[in-house]
Amino acid sequence: MEGRAGDHVHRDPLIDARTAIERCALLATCSEEPDRLTRPFATDAMRRAHGLVSGWMREAGMTVTRDNVGNLRGRLEGDGRATLLLGSHLDSVRDAGRYDGPLGIVVAIAAVQRLHDAGRHMPYGIEVIAFADEEGLRFGSTYLGSRAVAGSFDLADLERTDTAGVTMAEAIRAFGGDPDGIGEDRWRGGDLLGYCEVHIEQGPVLEAMGLPLGVVTAIAGQDRFVVSFTGEAGHAGTVPMNGRHDALVVAAMYVIAVEHEARTTPGLVATVGNIVVPGGAANVIPGRVDLTLDVRHPDDATRLQASQGLIGYAHALASDRGIAVDVRPVGENAAVSCAPRLRDLLARAVRDSDREVLEVASGAGHDGVVMSQLCDVGMLFVRCKGGVSHNPAESVEVDDVAAAIAALERFLELLA
Amino acid sequence: MEGRAGDHVHRDPLIDARTAIERCALLATCSEEPDRLTRPFATDAMRRAHGLVSGWMREAGMTVTRDNVGNLRGRLEGDGRATLLLGSHLDSVRDAGRYDGPLGIVVAIAAVQRLHDAGRHMPYGIEVIAFADEEGLRFGSTYLGSRAVAGSFDLADLERTDTAGVTMAEAIRAFGGDPDGIGEDRWRGGDLLGYCEVHIEQGPVLEAMGLPLGVVTAIAGQDRFVVSFTGEAGHAGTVPMNGRHDALVVAAMYVIAVEHEARTTPGLVATVGNIVVPGGAANVIPGRVDLTLDVRHPDDATRLQASQGLIGYAHALASDRGIAVDVRPVGENAAVSCAPRLRDLLARAVRDSDREVLEVASGAGHDGVVMSQLCDVGMLFVRCKGGVSHNPAESVEVDDVAAAIAALERFLELLA
Repeated sequence: MEGRAGDHVHRDPLIDARTAIERCALLATCSEEPDRLTRPFATDAMRRAHGLVSGWMREAGMTVTRDNVGNLRGRLEGDGRATLLLGSHLDSVRDAGRYDGPLGIVVAIAAVQRLHDAGRHMPYGIEVIAFADEEGLRFGSTYLGSRAVAGSFDLADLERTDTAGVTMAEAIRAFGGDPDGIGEDRWRGGDLLGYCEVHIEQGPVLEAMGLPLGVVTAIAGQDRFVVSFTGEAGHAGTVPMNGRHDALVVAAMYVIAVEHEARTTPGLVATVGNIVVPGGAANVIPGRVDLTLDVRHPDDATRLQASQGLIGYAHALASDRGIAVDVRPVGENAAVSCAPRLRDLLARAVRDSDREVLEVASGAGHDGVVMSQLCDVGMLFVRCKGGVSHNPAESVEVDDVAAAIAALERFLELLA
Repeated sequence: MEGRAGDHVHRDPLIDARTAIERCALLATCSEEPDRLTRPFATDAMRRAHGLVSGWMREAGMTVTRDNVGNLRGRLEGDGRATLLLGSHLDSVRDAGRYDGPLGIVVAIAAVQRLHDAGRHMPYGIEVIAFADEEGLRFGSTYLGSRAVAGSFDLADLERTDTAGVTMAEAIRAFGGDPDGIGEDRWRGGDLLGYCEVHIEQGPVLEAMGLPLGVVTAIAGQDRFVVSFTGEAGHAGTVPMNGRHDALVVAAMYVIAVEHEARTTPGLVATVGNIVVPGGAANVIPGRVDLTLDVRHPDDATRLQASQGLIGYAHALASDRGIAVDVRPVGENAAVSCAPRLRDLLARAVRDSDREVLEVASGAGHDGVVMSQLCDVGMLFVRCKGGVSHNPAESVEVDDVAAAIAALERFLELLA
């Protein structure tokens, strides 16, 4: 049984943390696949998840609505006219962990529940949003939910199809939404105090520092490229070493250079995540290699300088080795700074819970990237085991979730 | 019109070279694919090729038979009881060039034709074999033709199926052969003087040296491995550089080490021909990388030392970087030395044609590898443009083919 108003004014956050973790386990049963968690946008699995989350929202005193794109929104009215947005995403990747996204929703609901149970009224309304799609699994386009709220939903995306050939417009309609009404999903509720999201770190820094929580300073900007080296294919047995133009040897030098650049630039991460030798065979000297390059830094100028340096190096290296190179940009996101005011309040909230404040940058993208178009954003990271994410092995400690609930509740008080 | 006996005793080899090149062009029309040359084992394309080659063999005075596995054999009787075998393979890779294999057959027929036209009798019989399969395209098992002749055909291979599900036994039967009679294909014609094959070099050495012909000293031995590095996958945005166990960075260091080892060991070639990141994605740190390693040297001891060194280095590197490695041997062929007597005679034949003698090792495998189980082998390489092979761009000069015909004819005289 969960609390009724007035019952648990001084309830130990650990109790709410256990509930939050149980709720994540329940949500993990809402899947499109029998033996693993895969909850894409606008599916039956998402419908079942909405059933659970809307019940929890109502229990916490919120009125619940679903918008046209398929976000679930719970609102707790306050004494003033302004609104604070909380939330995270309810969709998942394929074979997902249970905390990436849902933890931020259930922690937000828990904090609201504690206010509600204590009978406390804030001088602002609180809206908890369970975003319909952040991962982009079903239609290959990320942030569908927050784009609708921020007013930057691209209507051309409605023509995208999933692997079964269903268009996004059809999927939204089948889910009970209205693709023609997505413009109306944009925030229309008056003044916003900001958007604040709790999320697992998805990295190992908090664990390494021995801390449960981190206050996010910025969401790193990102450059993505496909780099293609073209040398000359040849017979692996008959072309002497000094007559080769092996594209893979050059690509290998490049992979090492990318790692070196990132290791020697503070805060930079750079990754060659995939490499392919088209038509590659054991007995053929690689004539061509395609690789992906992902470069991220919380400071845009540093990121751009690193990316430009790495592009220049690809050309210099190829030229040195007498082969051709093509560098194709495939995406760029600018860094998003968390608002200093929200950062400070989150840091004070963490400090007031007798926790050390660690400021960290987020290397992963989050709904906050999009929500920053609409309002200030703040983020609170929760330590996760081994930094593992996008994997069934995702794991959090109940103590850390309790710390997050307490910090978020304190943040709501400080914001008042 | 081609020569009748006695007409062309002193005919310019250039005339026969032009014919040989035209014949390669004709054979290139015998393909299983409309717009490119793909002539696998025991196919209609091979049947049409047999029709052409058997006609040319008869024209050169040979009696023609086809054995059970599908080799086409043309025999010119001599005055003695011993036999010299000439030949090469008539099958091709997919999207092949027209000279890899067929050139050796048409040059052998041209040399026999010149003897026949001049009315000269050798003190030995000559048998030209157009081998049924060397490349292994259809059933993934190489040297089917020469294995049958050498008596090392593996009957278990008869159960192999092609991509259409046809077994090798069925294919042989449909081609008019008898899978149960392959044991009878083994050479039973008495004493052998050896097996001598003319083949395009498939490498750039002769071109670089400005020479049309090369006398092969040995066919390199070969080690093949699959090397798997296993580190730890992770989010490309959230795992700091110093917390990574990126399998691709280690694999890249290994690719460079392989190249370095080969560049610093005379005669060694070593190639990473393929590299795969299973499940690789732009935003995921590679947790595992599989790569192929191919190591070749004409001297077995040198090759084994290099291979062992490279295996040891894979382990040292992985251990240094805190990741796991698995090295799986997937094939080893010992080097085959060409018989000194045949090498010497081939070298004298080349010298007698006022050509400089260049001795080269073959980095590619050839039917001679298998035929060496049966008798002495010798090989003569013909320069090919850019060293290109297994590619429609394969190209030879008519002058070089003329040099090969003249040298082979002279070799036959010297052998007498």
